[in-house]
Amino acid sequence: MILTVTLNTALDITYRVQALRPHASHRVSEVTERPGGKGLNVARVLAALGHEVTVTGFAGGATGRVIQDRLTSTPGVIDALLPVSGATRRTIAVVDERTGDTTQLNEPGPAITPPEWSAFQEAYEDLLASADAVALCGSLPPGVPVGAYAGLVRTARAAGVPVVLDTSGEPLRRGVAARPDLIKPNADELAELTGSHEPLRATQDALRRGARAVVASLGTDGLLAAAPEGRWRAAPPARVHGNPTGAGDSAVAGLLSGLVEHLPWPDRLTRAVALSAATVAAPVAGEFDRRVYEELLERVAVTSGVNAA
Amino acid sequence: MILTVTLNTALDITYRVQALRPHASHRVSEVTERPGGKGLNVARVLAALGHEVTVTGFAGGATGRVIQDRLTSTPGVIDALLPVSGATRRTIAVVDERTGDTTQLNEPGPAITPPEWSAFQEAYEDLLASADAVALCGSLPPGVPVGAYAGLVRTARAAGVPVVLDTSGEPLRRGVAARPDLIKPNADELAELTGSHEPLRATQDALRRGARAVVASLGTDGLLAAAPEGRWRAAPPARVHGNPTGAGDSAVAGLLSGLVEHLPWPDRLTRAVALSAATVAAPVAGEFDRRVYEELLERVAVTSGVNAA
Repeated sequence: MILTVTLNTALDITYRVQALRPHASHRVSEVTERPGGKGLNVARVLAALGHEVTVTGFAGGATGRVIQDRLTSTPGVIDALLPVSGATRRTIAVVDERTGDTTQLNEPGPAITPPEWSAFQEAYEDLLASADAVALCGSLPPGVPVGAYAGLVRTARAAGVPVVLDTSGEPLRRGVAARPDLIKPNADELAELTGSHEPLRATQDALRRGARAVVASLGTDGLLAAAPEGRWRAAPPARVHGNPTGAGDSAVAGLLSGLVEHLPWPDRLTRAVALSAATVAAPVAGEFDRRVYEELLERVAVTSGVNAA
Repeated sequence: MILTVTLNTALDITYRVQALRPHASHRVSEVTERPGGKGLNVARVLAALGHEVTVTGFAGGATGRVIQDRLTSTPGVIDALLPVSGATRRTIAVVDERTGDTTQLNEPGPAITPPEWSAFQEAYEDLLASADAVALCGSLPPGVPVGAYAGLVRTARAAGVPVVLDTSGEPLRRGVAARPDLIKPNADELAELTGSHEPLRATQDALRRGARAVVASLGTDGLLAAAPEGRWRAAPPARVHGNPTGAGDSAVAGLLSGLVEHLPWPDRLTRAVALSAATVAAPVAGEFDRRVYEELLERVAVTSGVNAA
């Protein structure tokens, strides 16, 4: 199975309002809810691709119960979230029906106690024993040490399990130094890590910092990959219009599935780009449009041998 | 005991953000949650004044469970909310820390099925048997007929229980025609009911429409009351600064407690104004500052014999 870790799970709530005006009162016309946090999004896409996935991390309070109830009814996903005393955070996306723009309100997440963090590390080590690969995804909740991902990367490497790290800021900086098999920063995260806004140069720098491979997601420009096996660019045939929420998580799912299936790099990148674009095209945020995905698999352009600037 | 009815209960959530900017992503710095809906707010104030209160209405889903858990730990309040298949709504107040202004997002509430509405009407009739007074408060959730309050007023009158109606729009218009003992509209609700923006004239009109007594809340100008026993104005000695959320509900609690204690009208109005102002003065939305309340009880000015324009 593939293991995904989401330390700061979320109940993702979407509100539609006619027009968002600060200091006014708004009647929400439509409410949707789903389990969120990057690792849960990655798991859902992997399961839709036919993989067995186990999700771990933390869940607590009334929001945590909602998430776990929903996961139980998601085929192919095994819930191994650990209970915590605090309540799982909510994220609220307020969609303005007039403009289509989204305003995001993110709760910080529950404070994790030292015994809860210790219990997680033990459970994680046990789960790795039956994992073909692991993805460490998203932000850290309060109370989890900033070097947490570095430790989890080392534990995975010691267990011989390939490890993908998808986070940002200081947790990414520290995690990279522990030598993960793959990181998947977006342009901003890569620039923050390396200090360079030039993707080729920044990717090189990220390799030097310890990542075995780097796949940078450059929005509508597709992916830029640097690995021991080579360098590639992969891009969709045309710009896809829609909601980019979850596109990066779908790319991680594509890369992970390609990794456990031992696909050549160009095929992994094709899958990641096709899934990512099919997620942008889907009407529901974070879902992917299977027809678009299958069409794009034939049409993603992969260029090899990209040179550093 | 005093019975309060809240058909559209809510989980009231308050978020503090540094500055609310449409289309941006915000980190919420502080989250607070409490059971809401006008009837629950009225009940909390009545309980704080030492009355036994029973709350009824609907609760469902994860949000409903949170509300019921919290009510269980509120001294003096008995939870008689009925379970429904839909989920109790959330209301989100986003407080801008820079300006102190609030942006409100209100979910519509669960759809109530005809069997759920029938079950409520039966439970309500049973609860009236031991009620000294009943307050019908707030908006109607989807599925509840617009004439719902008219029916509930008639049931209370048939049972000989004094009934206070605090709602707005068409539910208020229909409810008034069923002859409630008291309505407590604010200036906007009164104008919507009567078509007149002149409070004295509008109050007279509301009496003609069927209300036995009308207490109009005029914001910082205090209360204007018209009853068979006379007419009064009641106002705080000075403008109180703070958050007006819940001030109207505290006024209803003051009027209800005065009613069951058979206080003369001026004393009921004094209590209502003092509670209302003490709610504006309290740091937490919807709570009241007991010290301010007790001070104001001595200082509210009640003028009798107000003439219609």
